[in-house]
Amino acid sequence: MNGKNIVASNYIEVNEKSLKAINPATGLMLDGEFFKADESLVHDALTSATQAFQSYRYLNKDLKASFLNAIADEIANLGEELVNRASAESGLPLARLQGELGRTTGQLRLFANLVSEGSWVDAIIDTALPDRQPLPRPDIRRMLVPIGPVVVFGASNFPLAFSVAGGDTASALASGCPVVVKAHPAHYGTSALVGGAIIKAAEKTGMPKGIFSLLYDDGYTVGTALVLHPLTKAVTFTGSFKGGMALINLAQQREQPIPVFAEMGSVNPVIFLPKAIENQAEELAKKYAASITLGAGQFCTNPGLLFAVQSPALENFTSTLKNSIALIPSATMLTEGIAVNFTKLSAEIINEAGVEVMAVSDLKNNELKNQSEAKIARVSAVDFIKNPKLREEIFGPYSLLVVAQDISELEKAIGVLEGQLTVTLMADKQELQDYPTLINKLTGKTGRIILNGVPTGVEVCAAMQHGGPFPATNDSRFTSVGSTAINRFARPLAYQDWEQELLPDELKDGNPLAIFRTVNQKLTNSYE
Amino acid sequence: MNGKNIVASNYIEVNEKSLKAINPATGLMLDGEFFKADESLVHDALTSATQAFQSYRYLNKDLKASFLNAIADEIANLGEELVNRASAESGLPLARLQGELGRTTGQLRLFANLVSEGSWVDAIIDTALPDRQPLPRPDIRRMLVPIGPVVVFGASNFPLAFSVAGGDTASALASGCPVVVKAHPAHYGTSALVGGAIIKAAEKTGMPKGIFSLLYDDGYTVGTALVLHPLTKAVTFTGSFKGGMALINLAQQREQPIPVFAEMGSVNPVIFLPKAIENQAEELAKKYAASITLGAGQFCTNPGLLFAVQSPALENFTSTLKNSIALIPSATMLTEGIAVNFTKLSAEIINEAGVEVMAVSDLKNNELKNQSEAKIARVSAVDFIKNPKLREEIFGPYSLLVVAQDISELEKAIGVLEGQLTVTLMADKQELQDYPTLINKLTGKTGRIILNGVPTGVEVCAAMQHGGPFPATNDSRFTSVGSTAINRFARPLAYQDWEQELLPDELKDGNPLAIFRTVNQKLTNSYE
Repeated sequence: MNGKNIVASNYIEVNEKSLKAINPATGLMLDGEFFKADESLVHDALTSATQAFQSYRYLNKDLKASFLNAIADEIANLGEELVNRASAESGLPLARLQGELGRTTGQLRLFANLVSEGSWVDAIIDTALPDRQPLPRPDIRRMLVPIGPVVVFGASNFPLAFSVAGGDTASALASGCPVVVKAHPAHYGTSALVGGAIIKAAEKTGMPKGIFSLLYDDGYTVGTALVLHPLTKAVTFTGSFKGGMALINLAQQREQPIPVFAEMGSVNPVIFLPKAIENQAEELAKKYAASITLGAGQFCTNPGLLFAVQSPALENFTSTLKNSIALIPSATMLTEGIAVNFTKLSAEIINEAGVEVMAVSDLKNNELKNQSEAKIARVSAVDFIKNPKLREEIFGPYSLLVVAQDISELEKAIGVLEGQLTVTLMADKQELQDYPTLINKLTGKTGRIILNGVPTGVEVCAAMQHGGPFPATNDSRFTSVGSTAINRFARPLAYQDWEQELLPDELKDGNPLAIFRTVNQKLTNSYE
Repeated sequence: MNGKNIVASNYIEVNEKSLKAINPATGLMLDGEFFKADESLVHDALTSATQAFQSYRYLNKDLKASFLNAIADEIANLGEELVNRASAESGLPLARLQGELGRTTGQLRLFANLVSEGSWVDAIIDTALPDRQPLPRPDIRRMLVPIGPVVVFGASNFPLAFSVAGGDTASALASGCPVVVKAHPAHYGTSALVGGAIIKAAEKTGMPKGIFSLLYDDGYTVGTALVLHPLTKAVTFTGSFKGGMALINLAQQREQPIPVFAEMGSVNPVIFLPKAIENQAEELAKKYAASITLGAGQFCTNPGLLFAVQSPALENFTSTLKNSIALIPSATMLTEGIAVNFTKLSAEIINEAGVEVMAVSDLKNNELKNQSEAKIARVSAVDFIKNPKLREEIFGPYSLLVVAQDISELEKAIGVLEGQLTVTLMADKQELQDYPTLINKLTGKTGRIILNGVPTGVEVCAAMQHGGPFPATNDSRFTSVGSTAINRFARPLAYQDWEQELLPDELKDGNPLAIFRTVNQKLTNSYE
């Protein structure tokens, strides 16, 4: 494994300190040596990205697609080596990482198809009306074009799907933007392997070298320099509220404003309406015990708040939940920092007024380090409403059950919630008809609303919205998952009275690419 | 004319100081008394807007459209009274304002049609795949929904089309967002008339009252409070770089980030390639004398920089330009502040190294106040490259001709330009083939590129892009003119496994609205 920084698709020697990857399950160092990047590498990466942008943005769409498919192929070729390394660095089970590998290559291929199909540029054509009174109308044709180099921060909790060649990188490259990745310090080796796959793919498909760089750092110097660099045109981040806000605040120091897309997590409230609990208390309890503890609870869509109304059936639900949680084995968390924080916060929450422990895992693995023990706490709606601290995310297998006296108190408790990535409603058919204002309130607070399901599991598809009102993300108008994620990195460019031969194919008369276009207010994909 | 502040469609009495409108041509006060708003009115306006949002966002699309059409009708009904008042307050000629009135009502009707047609919500449906391995795919359906109350700052230079019921208000109301307008102090009376038209239209079509408020201020208190108010979800502004950046910086103090759309002007460079000048020196000179001085040069698309290569034909061009400019009569500028600033800056520019006056208007009207005298200066490309001050906008009938020795020097001069709303290329057909890298460089710097035309005149249509790389605007991914301006105020909301009956019509099986939707990756508008 080559642990050197990658600048413009080349491995670069630096004299900076070397970094080692840690296995969180054992606390031991893993093989491979990585090197702390510096500001000069940041500058080189962005300068070469800007240069590459000049040709990459005009590259034929099928060549862009073949580059994305080649990355998917190279990552798939790494196969077990990659999955084993990612598991050793993250503590996540092999099966989960095998699935994440499929998702990662699937995302790349999805964007390859999107680019190759071509309609995503949202071409709009209003042809000239030379005889219009009082003034003629010019010919105006508009399409989306890429904005320039994108800085991607790898996320800890998806070492493949939200990291070096994850959704952010795939969508940025698809849009026509070069990418500079800051590797997450929790998985240097995984990052190096995927970085190697990208430069192989770039070479095989003849991409300009500056299209990709990958930098390592165990601190904040490189990330800070990347966000502040004048050639950076956008930043993507998935992580904590604190981390996201730090990047947003940093970007505000820039002379030239740029979009920062920060997905800062969420408590993903789940509202259990009374009949849903009455009809299937045990089934729901088991379903949620699994969802809360999936991947050691380290999902941005982990259900961190459960809302219900007091009833005998609810006690049945809670006792099944208690029994199910007791049987959930502890799991290795992603990093020592995350494990320490989880243990601390999930212990301290009990000191808050009215909060009591309702369920804990009985199965702790004492042979491994950084183990998370699942925990569910309980509080009354009255105490919940009073205490903003109870609305904060505790990253890990934890959830807080908020119990209201009646529906109106439940609505009040929901009223204090902030913006969320997801909201889930568990209800029977009749109840859905009974509470229209409750449902309206919920849709106003979230990017995705789920009926009778679980929020964990984010489908990568065109209809997915992974981004909600603040503080879930800082700009709810965009998604970081699914094909419309590409819109983050593109801006419209209008050509007025432009020469046919010089227009991009997307805007030429006759629609040579047969993409969907809006021509004089009619949407059509025919050759005209 | 009722000059009281409008909060939630009601005229409100305040004890604050009264404000008067000034006729810039005479310096005299116009009739009508207006009242400075305060923070409590700001709070009331946003609280009632938030309340109105709860019902307005779910309102049937045809009712929203009828509201927009009713505003257009009411404004059209004001007719001469409105145009006369706007002319008295702005110094702009009646014919221009008659045209702007048509544009304003046209914009409202365009958004009414867009909303009524319905496809703008970009519905995307991925239906369930219950048998998919290893996991079933849920049913996910996504559409755009409005973000909430929008604060609109009226602009000085379009008292109708970029003001109380201008493009920002029309697109925000169309998206489903209530609007709070801060009236521009240069046209209180025009604002009051249009505000009255909006509340009449709201009443006639039964809109919730909080949907519209209009506040007056001759300082910064009200604007500051509007941007900082926690219930504000977006801000729009058209004006100077300084003004735009002040609002952006203010918004950065907010706890909750919101989008600010600031259109901060541009110098709109025009590049004359040698053959274009050779072929039609005189015609182009006349065309540009008119474009530079149109509306006293008070357009955000005013051509403030002309680039050309030294040649005998260029001297022919400049002498015609000189003669044409000499015959352009002075014109009343929008406000005393703008006139003073223009006189000062267009005089001072001559002190910059290498800058000389090339053309001035000989026709000054000494009977009227705040008169602008057209001026064109000239500088070498070498001096231009050295001096960043020469790239700054001078708002008014002014342009700077930058003369290069050859094409390569011309390209260098263009290289130092910042982001622009428009770039115009004047070239003959052969020249377009000869300079592909020049054209690529230009497209990277602008939101709209025009061939052999003038940048003034911004067509309101679907393909228009009025927004370019910083500092022209702070977010080049959006436009403030044309139907896609609506996208500024909407976010995607995804419904997962949602009940058919409870889905919005836009997302229901069978496509009851017959809008265009992307269903399982196929775009279709048929009833299914």
